[in-house]
Amino acid sequence: MQLQFLGTGAGMPSKERNTSALALKLLEERGTIWLFDCGEATQHRILHTTIRPRKIEKVFITHLHGDHIFGLPGLLSSRSFLGGEETLTLYGPKGLKEWVESTFLLSNTHITYPMEFIEVQDGIVFEDEQMIVTAKGLEHVIPCFGYRIEQKPLPGELLIDKARALNVPKGPLLGKLKNGLDVTLDDGKVVFSKDVTSPPRKGFTVTILGDTKYCENALVLSQDADIVVHEATFDHATTHLAANYGHSTNIEAATIAKEAGAKSLILNHISARFLPTDIQRLLEDAKNVFNNTFIAKDYSHYFWKDERLTEE
Amino acid sequence: MQLQFLGTGAGMPSKERNTSALALKLLEERGTIWLFDCGEATQHRILHTTIRPRKIEKVFITHLHGDHIFGLPGLLSSRSFLGGEETLTLYGPKGLKEWVESTFLLSNTHITYPMEFIEVQDGIVFEDEQMIVTAKGLEHVIPCFGYRIEQKPLPGELLIDKARALNVPKGPLLGKLKNGLDVTLDDGKVVFSKDVTSPPRKGFTVTILGDTKYCENALVLSQDADIVVHEATFDHATTHLAANYGHSTNIEAATIAKEAGAKSLILNHISARFLPTDIQRLLEDAKNVFNNTFIAKDYSHYFWKDERLTEE
Ligand SMILES: [Zn+2]
Ligand SMILES: [Zn+2]
Repeated sequence: MQLQFLGTGAGMPSKERNTSALALKLLEERGTIWLFDCGEATQHRILHTTIRPRKIEKVFITHLHGDHIFGLPGLLSSRSFLGGEETLTLYGPKGLKEWVESTFLLSNTHITYPMEFIEVQDGIVFEDEQMIVTAKGLEHVIPCFGYRIEQKPLPGELLIDKARALNVPKGPLLGKLKNGLDVTLDDGKVVFSKDVTSPPRKGFTVTILGDTKYCENALVLSQDADIVVHEATFDHATTHLAANYGHSTNIEAATIAKEAGAKSLILNHISARFLPTDIQRLLEDAKNVFNNTFIAKDYSHYFWKDERLTEE
Repeated sequence: MQLQFLGTGAGMPSKERNTSALALKLLEERGTIWLFDCGEATQHRILHTTIRPRKIEKVFITHLHGDHIFGLPGLLSSRSFLGGEETLTLYGPKGLKEWVESTFLLSNTHITYPMEFIEVQDGIVFEDEQMIVTAKGLEHVIPCFGYRIEQKPLPGELLIDKARALNVPKGPLLGKLKNGLDVTLDDGKVVFSKDVTSPPRKGFTVTILGDTKYCENALVLSQDADIVVHEATFDHATTHLAANYGHSTNIEAATIAKEAGAKSLILNHISARFLPTDIQRLLEDAKNVFNNTFIAKDYSHYFWKDERLTEE
């Protein structure tokens, strides 16, 4: 699993930071990419990465502010131009479907793949044998969601040498043992699955929050997460403004990560007000509250491996 | 008058060419900029120019395909963020107003300046003491317009030395002479305006065409124009495709410029299919038909001065 930030700014694009978009790359896990928000020119950012639009399987929209959605019609239409044929599922607040559909009608855009819209409310918005995604409302100036993406535990692997040592023959019994079933051999001896498989491995949990002031649901969604992506539109000196505008400070983001018992934190949605020297300060101040903090830049690429977050 | 191309591609953005947008810079003439089309990420291109969004006075949309309008909501909202207060007037086909308004409603976008929409039909769409803009329908797969922008003749300048030599006193008589009126002096002598002013200068004419196949109205709009901006989505080898898709070839664009008696031609809306070597060929082949041809790149900056078009 990898995370690549395509837009880490707030409100308006600047030369350095585009409006919001974040790719959760699940290429090893399921051969696809999930996109979180899609500000204008997200597809232009993608041109400078290895991401292929047809690999995008799902788009999760946190809220309907322009800096989080104005890139959607263009990306969806280019995905079609570029030969995307698989269904694309879009998750977002009420109104998203009507807007995309009326925009396509107006612009005479015809896409080649099926599109499915899920209107998000608090609760599980997606689940299959591998993943589960939970949404909860945050506290912004308009309805806004955070998403918690959990990979289910990975089955243990069959330890073939151990199985052979216990005289399990090649064939279907090995499959049963791998799938957690105990088996009886021809000689009447029972072989226990746990003795010939490695223990199941914990899956990852990533929490990706939309714009929000410091709030309870941010904490709930972040509980014990491996990675929390939290906005930090303001700094500590402007805490009073943050709450008024429905945004958070770097310190509030770090406090959420700490209280939630998260493993790592990435600060995102950084205002163009901050100069490069401010960025270092924002990071240092957050680290004083929660040490394992990173601050995202456009194109930042993070790897989750061996229970550790590293930046490329 | 200057022209700066912000997006010169066709259909979809590439690394080199963005979707359509062209700035007609009238900074010396009226202190403002007129924008023609606004593909996604036009505001991102603008970030890398000296153009200030609040200086944009008018936006002319040729047609409602996504590659010509998807940058509009973002640019309009940034113009507000950046302190734009003057009225912005948008010209375009039916449906533009409803789309912008519903997009703003959905995204909770509130702009600080008045916005005015003019639904374009064949004929004069704007006129004041300085400029006149005429639109005509072209032949594309959906309704699409071309615009002819004419600067009215510039009044001659008062030749003060000549007026003084004829004993015209300082004061209001000079103003009358400048404005084309003949005057009688106290001694009964008549002074003719034409004798103390330089002749009126011809204004410029720029024709900016939207997507179109080779058509009569492209010719009419381009008649005797100083500059024609014409699409060239296809090349001569694919002439049969061009007409089917409602587009033109480089040769057809050059033929329009030649038949119209235009002074210069800029090829625009260049497909990403063409490699850099093809571009040179597209240009050379067009020049064989109409010699004073240019081919636009993103950020290309053209100057109209002393009746001549030059590229910066
Ligand atoms: Zn935002
Ligand atoms: Zn086009």
